[in-house]
Amino acid sequence: MFALNRRSILSGAAAAALMPVAAFTPARAVAPPAGKQAPSFYRYKLGTNEITVIHDGARTFPMPDIFVKNVSKDEALAAAESAYMPKGMVTVPFNPTVINTGSKLVLIDSGYGPNVSPTVGLLPFNMAAAGIDPKQIDIVILSHLHPDHINGIRAADGSAAFPQAEIQVPALDWAFWADEGNMSRAQGFMADYFKNFHRVFDPIKDKVTKYEWGQEVAPGVTALDTRGHTPGHTSFAVASGSSKVLIQSDVTNIPELFLRHPDWQVMFDIDPQQAAATRHKFYDMAAAEKATIIGFHFPFPSIGHVEKDGNNYRLMPVAWNGTL
Amino acid sequence: MFALNRRSILSGAAAAALMPVAAFTPARAVAPPAGKQAPSFYRYKLGTNEITVIHDGARTFPMPDIFVKNVSKDEALAAAESAYMPKGMVTVPFNPTVINTGSKLVLIDSGYGPNVSPTVGLLPFNMAAAGIDPKQIDIVILSHLHPDHINGIRAADGSAAFPQAEIQVPALDWAFWADEGNMSRAQGFMADYFKNFHRVFDPIKDKVTKYEWGQEVAPGVTALDTRGHTPGHTSFAVASGSSKVLIQSDVTNIPELFLRHPDWQVMFDIDPQQAAATRHKFYDMAAAEKATIIGFHFPFPSIGHVEKDGNNYRLMPVAWNGTL
Repeated sequence: MFALNRRSILSGAAAAALMPVAAFTPARAVAPPAGKQAPSFYRYKLGTNEITVIHDGARTFPMPDIFVKNVSKDEALAAAESAYMPKGMVTVPFNPTVINTGSKLVLIDSGYGPNVSPTVGLLPFNMAAAGIDPKQIDIVILSHLHPDHINGIRAADGSAAFPQAEIQVPALDWAFWADEGNMSRAQGFMADYFKNFHRVFDPIKDKVTKYEWGQEVAPGVTALDTRGHTPGHTSFAVASGSSKVLIQSDVTNIPELFLRHPDWQVMFDIDPQQAAATRHKFYDMAAAEKATIIGFHFPFPSIGHVEKDGNNYRLMPVAWNGTL
Repeated sequence: MFALNRRSILSGAAAAALMPVAAFTPARAVAPPAGKQAPSFYRYKLGTNEITVIHDGARTFPMPDIFVKNVSKDEALAAAESAYMPKGMVTVPFNPTVINTGSKLVLIDSGYGPNVSPTVGLLPFNMAAAGIDPKQIDIVILSHLHPDHINGIRAADGSAAFPQAEIQVPALDWAFWADEGNMSRAQGFMADYFKNFHRVFDPIKDKVTKYEWGQEVAPGVTALDTRGHTPGHTSFAVASGSSKVLIQSDVTNIPELFLRHPDWQVMFDIDPQQAAATRHKFYDMAAAEKATIIGFHFPFPSIGHVEKDGNNYRLMPVAWNGTL
């Protein structure tokens, strides 16, 4: 204030006119940082359906040596770094989808659930922000039975996170993960995934509904054969009137690596050759149709178009629409 | 229910095991559509600063014949359509930014304000959702004096939307828009823009603060010369510790057209040759530095990196971070 007074005295009205208006208003408290991210959901209308992508969070971790099985770690890291991921790290986001068909409220995949890390398991928080009551979910459809897709069906106390919902699982994935021989041969993270399967499903194993490819698993929602990532890995076509969206699930993991390089094999692909064949088939079709695609591991809001780029592909995210 | 009963009777337990669990729970009300988009703001930390991009909305309109002054309308429309804009249309989003420097709460540009269309003027709503009180804004810095940047400083009743804020305007833009000779020669939309300038600013014309390029307009916020779009068009470098972000304002309009084709001249560029020269200079520097850029007309959340692509550029949006 000394400087202000001194300049005002020295230069009079001319200096005063240049002074910030705020300098003449009473001092007030500085606004504290808000400290919270926006609720991370995104909604759009598909015909008469209301689709809401609900962000479960993301994990950033040191890239495992075999994250991409068939290229060098240096090459994989270079791709991550060229996508502005932190040096040496890889970031993977997780995005379940809710579909209100008008007659059923359907959740596709459930995220990581509680107690994994502070940056994931955000589904309940973001679902509440989206105005969706977990008790109103009629059907939970799981695309495949990996932890990041299934763990969220249980709350922290082990109870059902969606207590009124039918739980639908792909019959072929169920057969794979429930097989004792497969489990006995599993090593490393796969052994953990089998144990996790039993932890999540044993208490409700007689209550799940097993679905097949080609089946309409909810009104207007058809299960599509996209095997490879897992034996029963499923994508979904959601149709309403003349509108359609493809929920690809894990046809690719993160697009920055695996859409740009569709023949790269992410460590989680159980049948990597089949997974790569599925990727080409799925995206060649989607690109030709200019289909809208929701990807579980696409950056939130995880909706876009996939275009051919030589033998590779690229994701064109949709432009955010601030109104419905 | 008839089918259920009949199959249960015919096939007994085996069929029952395949029945959806939900079929056995009491019928309940279908959840109505939520009907509301997510609040559209996005927050990130820059050193000790908290930066919040606040979406003011977007407009989709039939592409004007001269939207791009120096290429055919067909060529411009093809670029819009290849970015999945509706046929014949162009979509332009608007994204002001709030910076909490710890000592000042600063708004850069103010959006369209009320009464333009239902899809813009969302700033007050999204600012409230972001937990930011307009009465706590200390400084509003305007990058240039086009309607989509300035109109939001007035509420629907004409009062100050940010009643405690100092309003900072670029001195060179002020001189241009306040010049009676310039106004008398203006035609078409430019004549409207001059009238709009007077509508917005005449009641407070003695109270605005005029800033110059190179000046620190708020703590850690430096005004950068990016002339061309308007005579005083300004971008901002925001620095905190070793972190920096560039708020480019309108160095380009929508990236789908003008970053991909930096020599295309959007109809709003007052000095198109200078604007194109500024674009190349600004993005060549930003690409070399791998600078993070916030673009007023980039798709929300409007933060990304700009990369060189031959003589053109492309935007790589940042991945959404669901936690702070």
